[in-house]
Amino acid sequence: MTALHPEVRTTDTLALDAAAQDLLFREARTANTFASEPVPDERLQAIYDLVKFGPTAMNAQPMRLVAVRTPEARERLVAHMSEGNRPKTASAPLTLIVAADTGFHEHLPTVFPHAAGAREAMEGNPGRAGMAKFNATIQLGYLIVGIRAAGLAAGPMTGFDAEGVRAEFLEGTGQEVLAVVNVGMPGPDAWFPRNPRLAYDQIVTEI
Amino acid sequence: MTALHPEVRTTDTLALDAAAQDLLFREARTANTFASEPVPDERLQAIYDLVKFGPTAMNAQPMRLVAVRTPEARERLVAHMSEGNRPKTASAPLTLIVAADTGFHEHLPTVFPHAAGAREAMEGNPGRAGMAKFNATIQLGYLIVGIRAAGLAAGPMTGFDAEGVRAEFLEGTGQEVLAVVNVGMPGPDAWFPRNPRLAYDQIVTEI
Repeated sequence: MTALHPEVRTTDTLALDAAAQDLLFREARTANTFASEPVPDERLQAIYDLVKFGPTAMNAQPMRLVAVRTPEARERLVAHMSEGNRPKTASAPLTLIVAADTGFHEHLPTVFPHAAGAREAMEGNPGRAGMAKFNATIQLGYLIVGIRAAGLAAGPMTGFDAEGVRAEFLEGTGQEVLAVVNVGMPGPDAWFPRNPRLAYDQIVTEI
Repeated sequence: MTALHPEVRTTDTLALDAAAQDLLFREARTANTFASEPVPDERLQAIYDLVKFGPTAMNAQPMRLVAVRTPEARERLVAHMSEGNRPKTASAPLTLIVAADTGFHEHLPTVFPHAAGAREAMEGNPGRAGMAKFNATIQLGYLIVGIRAAGLAAGPMTGFDAEGVRAEFLEGTGQEVLAVVNVGMPGPDAWFPRNPRLAYDQIVTEI
């Protein structure tokens, strides 16, 4: 409640406990180096089993992931990353290629069963690819929170040759690449000093 | 650990406690009706003070919010919502117009201070509007989690006349509308039965 620590107010007004707030947002940081400790498959599965419940339009869930673990696959990916993103991507124990499935509508009869004809209507909808990307990007937000919920650090990146990554890993799938996210325990000097956040009144207009 | 409750595994493998998992994802639901209980300004401020720490490219933080509370502003907004979204938007105590600020680069000297010339470079970058929308959409994911962290229900919607909402509320701001999100305590019969989620192996490809 002191002006020196304005964040403390947050803890008092939210339902989420302070330790969870710290884990997911306040103390979580984007990692730029990673320890060698592996991220087992069941950990990624647990992350997905949590974040899959985040809402999407028509429950479409268009986000898809390629989990890059093998040295061969990692080498293929690193070649498409921008210079500054190569060392960290080469050393992360797990890297996720996050994509949007423009063919998400094929699952609508299963995931949105009460809307008869939704798949057919979406089939010819020119906004379908945009809808896939928009909702998969919201899911990327959930995913970053979920990685942190697993006690892991995320390193989301957009600095790469998106068309190269698509052609290398997603040819023929109807998926578009959104981001590449390194995942693991932070290594030495894993983060830069935290940069400033915009103030509430720069973000919110009350009407 | 029983096949009847596969979600229980999640709790064992994540660092986030089970109550927080439930609050943010597992028991949280998209609300379609709202109680009249108001959402005070300090609650929205606490949500922002938490989710502002979510990462964005170049720390650009392009998401902007219009907080609609007054009956007059609400009426103007409801007129642009699609038919099925009108009653809930008319009755929510707080509705957020979530937008992406294509002029986010003006803040780069403050929020990304070590990158000299970033504002100037971004000024003429034809990808700037796309970058604003992409990163603000990731922030929309954080925001939905943050609303739930406050013990509130979110009702995110894309069913509205986006150009109409932009012209009505954001003319001259350089902001593009992404979504409209109702916020409040759930009202009677606030949600439909939970729809199915896709299975891990439908989402993740291991390589």
